[in-house]
Amino acid sequence: MAGKIEVGILGATGMVGQHFIRFLQCHPWFEVKWLGASDRSAGKKYREATGWRLDGVMPGSVGELTVGECKPGNAPHLIFSALDASVATEIERAFAEAGHVVVSNSRNHRMEPDVPLLVPEINPEHLKLLPHQRRRRGWRGQIVTNPNCSTIVLTMGLAPLLPFGITKVMATTLQAISGAGYPGVPSMDIQANVIPFIAGEEEKMQQETQKILGEFTGEEIRPLAAKVSAHCNRVPVTDGHTVTVSVELTAKPQEQDLLACFDNFVSVPQQRHLPSAPPRPIVYMPECDRPQPRRDAERERGMAVFFGRLRPCPVLDWKFVVLGHNTIRGAAGAAVLNAELMRSEGFFD
Amino acid sequence: MAGKIEVGILGATGMVGQHFIRFLQCHPWFEVKWLGASDRSAGKKYREATGWRLDGVMPGSVGELTVGECKPGNAPHLIFSALDASVATEIERAFAEAGHVVVSNSRNHRMEPDVPLLVPEINPEHLKLLPHQRRRRGWRGQIVTNPNCSTIVLTMGLAPLLPFGITKVMATTLQAISGAGYPGVPSMDIQANVIPFIAGEEEKMQQETQKILGEFTGEEIRPLAAKVSAHCNRVPVTDGHTVTVSVELTAKPQEQDLLACFDNFVSVPQQRHLPSAPPRPIVYMPECDRPQPRRDAERERGMAVFFGRLRPCPVLDWKFVVLGHNTIRGAAGAAVLNAELMRSEGFFD
Amino acid sequence: MAGKIEVGILGATGMVGQHFIRFLQCHPWFEVKWLGASDRSAGKKYREATGWRLDGVMPGSVGELTVGECKPGNAPHLIFSALDASVATEIERAFAEAGHVVVSNSRNHRMEPDVPLLVPEINPEHLKLLPHQRRRRGWRGQIVTNPNCSTIVLTMGLAPLLPFGITKVMATTLQAISGAGYPGVPSMDIQANVIPFIAGEEEKMQQETQKILGEFTGEEIRPLAAKVSAHCNRVPVTDGHTVTVSVELTAKPQEQDLLACFDNFVSVPQQRHLPSAPPRPIVYMPECDRPQPRRDAERERGMAVFFGRLRPCPVLDWKFVVLGHNTIRGAAGAAVLNAELMRSEGFFD
Amino acid sequence: MAGKIEVGILGATGMVGQHFIRFLQCHPWFEVKWLGASDRSAGKKYREATGWRLDGVMPGSVGELTVGECKPGNAPHLIFSALDASVATEIERAFAEAGHVVVSNSRNHRMEPDVPLLVPEINPEHLKLLPHQRRRRGWRGQIVTNPNCSTIVLTMGLAPLLPFGITKVMATTLQAISGAGYPGVPSMDIQANVIPFIAGEEEKMQQETQKILGEFTGEEIRPLAAKVSAHCNRVPVTDGHTVTVSVELTAKPQEQDLLACFDNFVSVPQQRHLPSAPPRPIVYMPECDRPQPRRDAERERGMAVFFGRLRPCPVLDWKFVVLGHNTIRGAAGAAVLNAELMRSEGFFD
Repeated sequence: MAGKIEVGILGATGMVGQHFIRFLQCHPWFEVKWLGASDRSAGKKYREATGWRLDGVMPGSVGELTVGECKPGNAPHLIFSALDASVATEIERAFAEAGHVVVSNSRNHRMEPDVPLLVPEINPEHLKLLPHQRRRRGWRGQIVTNPNCSTIVLTMGLAPLLPFGITKVMATTLQAISGAGYPGVPSMDIQANVIPFIAGEEEKMQQETQKILGEFTGEEIRPLAAKVSAHCNRVPVTDGHTVTVSVELTAKPQEQDLLACFDNFVSVPQQRHLPSAPPRPIVYMPECDRPQPRRDAERERGMAVFFGRLRPCPVLDWKFVVLGHNTIRGAAGAAVLNAELMRSEGFFD
Repeated sequence: MAGKIEVGILGATGMVGQHFIRFLQCHPWFEVKWLGASDRSAGKKYREATGWRLDGVMPGSVGELTVGECKPGNAPHLIFSALDASVATEIERAFAEAGHVVVSNSRNHRMEPDVPLLVPEINPEHLKLLPHQRRRRGWRGQIVTNPNCSTIVLTMGLAPLLPFGITKVMATTLQAISGAGYPGVPSMDIQANVIPFIAGEEEKMQQETQKILGEFTGEEIRPLAAKVSAHCNRVPVTDGHTVTVSVELTAKPQEQDLLACFDNFVSVPQQRHLPSAPPRPIVYMPECDRPQPRRDAERERGMAVFFGRLRPCPVLDWKFVVLGHNTIRGAAGAAVLNAELMRSEGFFD
Repeated sequence: MAGKIEVGILGATGMVGQHFIRFLQCHPWFEVKWLGASDRSAGKKYREATGWRLDGVMPGSVGELTVGECKPGNAPHLIFSALDASVATEIERAFAEAGHVVVSNSRNHRMEPDVPLLVPEINPEHLKLLPHQRRRRGWRGQIVTNPNCSTIVLTMGLAPLLPFGITKVMATTLQAISGAGYPGVPSMDIQANVIPFIAGEEEKMQQETQKILGEFTGEEIRPLAAKVSAHCNRVPVTDGHTVTVSVELTAKPQEQDLLACFDNFVSVPQQRHLPSAPPRPIVYMPECDRPQPRRDAERERGMAVFFGRLRPCPVLDWKFVVLGHNTIRGAAGAAVLNAELMRSEGFFD
Repeated sequence: MAGKIEVGILGATGMVGQHFIRFLQCHPWFEVKWLGASDRSAGKKYREATGWRLDGVMPGSVGELTVGECKPGNAPHLIFSALDASVATEIERAFAEAGHVVVSNSRNHRMEPDVPLLVPEINPEHLKLLPHQRRRRGWRGQIVTNPNCSTIVLTMGLAPLLPFGITKVMATTLQAISGAGYPGVPSMDIQANVIPFIAGEEEKMQQETQKILGEFTGEEIRPLAAKVSAHCNRVPVTDGHTVTVSVELTAKPQEQDLLACFDNFVSVPQQRHLPSAPPRPIVYMPECDRPQPRRDAERERGMAVFFGRLRPCPVLDWKFVVLGHNTIRGAAGAAVLNAELMRSEGFFD
């Protein structure tokens, strides 16, 4: 490769934008060259426009970049979107229309029928929606999305079970505070507490899961015909969403079949050695009390999903626990892996 | 009533014992007069034998009591047991044999067929097991137990649904650290973390629930023929177990039927105005993000169970959240309410 | 007393206002009859205007009151102010001008030379500033203030030492999140963290302490001529500010002299049996690891200050730890005690 | 260098031992080849003998090593000691006697007059005690120690001020739970709480600071003649001790003099490019609310100390905040840096 691919970040001053910047530091393929934010920030240096909210300090490389307006103009071809849902619909569309590849973490376009809701280990073939998207919309560019943070964790845990025929899924989340951004959850609400509600989250988990695990028919995505029910809770954890899952499967596999499935699960990102792909996307932990968010979420650079406590479920068939880093695997890292998959398909040649 | 009924506490120096002492302060019917603990403590004043672990300080009334050995001898007729499971089997049996009424919070005898696993709002008629217990065992006294802390919370949430025919229950707990006693959970394990495992807890929830909701046939308890599955997690909350629940019901009630059931649910303890009975055993909270452990568990002196977020479940029929104070309604308060029920039935006349 | 004294609360919908409402529930002398808030809330029922942020639920008694504008008009004579500093100066002045007794928790007027910065156990004679205040300002009413939450805790710990001649005070605080109101501190900032800075807090502790411990000369307050240095930190504690203190004293007392001073410390509120006065304003805890915020702050209805770990200081003379409930003794309860002192002086006859 | 220097770890299965193992992974000079632990573990593989308590999982490299008894025998020349204080005195002495270089994190020998209490950035010349130690004790080997975790953080913050003449130091700590090892602090004690006491910690900070900042006279260490007072608190933070400090200085420097001192502070480890030396041992943070443990302690691989909020102190001369990672810079990393300094002095040639 001659040089790195220049990338831009929409919504660069917000918390998800900061996660993109941190995750892309030293990336072997991509280099952050352009930052877009609200009018309030445009024209300022990134260092001046941004209160750095992540642990540690702002990477030196981006501080001197001048923040631009969220308009296509002279932005790079590849754009990561960390835009707030309140503005993402219009801005992302404008960039796609103008020919950019928009790899978005925002929820706005996820459920549109011609937009891939992509998890490279699960449904890389959903990229085949893109010609339909371009044709139908008359865009020169395109939009690809990644799922909601808790949905990624859940679907990564379900993907190896697809061969057994998933018919019912019951999931309860214990979600980290970082999932709510900044200022996000007031400490008076979550200190030594549980909040048994996250607005819109259960609906997203239920619908997105069916689309992600669905099949590309040549024209569209046929959602997985499984019933999915989610209970979403916020807990006083910094990073890492834990999900307890019960599943019903058509085939009635034995425990060893299931474990083998998880252990052997690798997919396109591993086969193509995408730079952000974890060697094993799902790491099985045999200890009876793992995975745990503070101890495991950051392993494997936050890109693997950790799986444990597989045991029979008296109501459905099997139950288990799955954990992933919500702001890395569940947000910025997910989008970057999507772009890596696209590059490996020649999208940026 | 001429005077108060004298009571003793087995395992008085431990954390559950301390909860009994605190809960029984100023009780209108019962007065703590005797404390039993291990040989290490026996002979000392309670103040000297005990490191007080609860918030606040040791009630002055008990500090000067001399701790006795855990032997029947001159203990009062009514004995609350806060014994550790490692010693409860033998000691509780010895007291029952010697004629004491043992109202136990320990798990040891809970699942024995002739021992009531009592929740006064749910199965007061299970006390009718006691004549069978005495006859079969040849005891002069008897043993009554209360359920595991998370099981009480779950079953209180299920009890109003019994008329609709409960067939499947899926529960995920988010349990407070106080449930593990002292020293209990190391802070390095739970600080900003989730532990997705509590030894033996899921089995207890699954089995105890069926027994509690079961029917007394005249001879024994026929367990509820519902499938119950539990996922148990420890979270960094001080007091209050939160449980997310999905249920399948034979009758297919409407939301208003269910809410009416919860709102109207009162039972024997309320009708008899037992001193520790909350006016409404189940408090429905209409706010979308309640109940919450730090904000709600201590309301109603910790004896009510809080219920919220009733909504359809795509996999079973309905889902909701239920919360209760694990060391009060789930332990000491539960046992005291059991004893109050027994007194109202004339057990101590 | 024929009936209760009617009181109003300025800033009633905010978190401090909610603390006033909770603290005044069932108060034997005062009854909340009037609530003032911003234009946004005025005209609504309190229940509709207010998101209740305290643990538990809104007291039923106030929910149906209609919120008024923050204008004197038909408000009761006695007004508690929980106004935000951004608006307190003008509104409190308007009420005082119109003849109301404004007992304020806001910081705005605290350091004005003719405004009492009152802690009833320490400086009840500072009320004698009020005739000067009225004369100088030409007001029919008056303004009385209570100190900043961490300052009250510190000065309560210092008051018994005044007879020994305090010359230097070094204090480091570990302050609860509730001190910052709602939404207050974002959880991403304080979760498993320390923030070693609270805007303006160190200056307030340094200046207010000198005024509170100062002497009324017949005309004004002569500040205590002690050097005071404060380090202020926010820690992940819900309620209760802990302060580590080192002091230099002119007299060189022995440990037993100091302990006797603390043990015997009672003052006007105790002598007059004011309803919110704790029996002992300073509770000495002999245990080596107390006081602790979660275990002690709520004792004595949150109105006592807890003191422990008295030991020699190698740099100054003595060092110790002092703790108090920041939203009760340090805010709403402090103001109510001020009003009780004033009533005992005949202010509302 | 031909090959790596083989090292052993005493107390390898404990939490500090685990920190050594993690810190030494991939070390360019040292390789862990020998692990010693109690009789209970001796003879087992490390993987079987050890419950891994650190976040993440046990490094693969050591799991298959067989744990030995804590006896000199065939252990490597360079031994790191993570022994518990209850056994360290005898075992470390036996190893030194047998010719080993014992680089200890235990407190037992720290205050002995012929044992260096070494912080390579502060007092590398204290190594000159070692010939005296060997001569006086008749040992073939030697013992070198590093300070208590909170003392290292404090002394690193004080070292640049030595030229100004330090006469008084007042320090209050906010210490992380990891400082207490495993199981360490029960969660019921520290959850949403502060414990204003850590046994022995204040004495250690007061005495060790004087020795560390003392001068080698050719024969012994003359302690710094400054008065030091410490208040030690445990707070619900995972890693990183925060210390608020006030100092009195003989010279009366201006703020810019002090900042220059901190900014320019580098020492022997930096000059010799020791592998674990941070490029700048003290990192000044200009933000008003930094350093913070969760955000800063892990930066620079946990080996730098972070400094902020320099401002005048009304009681002494200046006050500031200093923060360091207690289990890295304050324990395992400190000992490894000591050994690196020794190697650079030719100790292991």
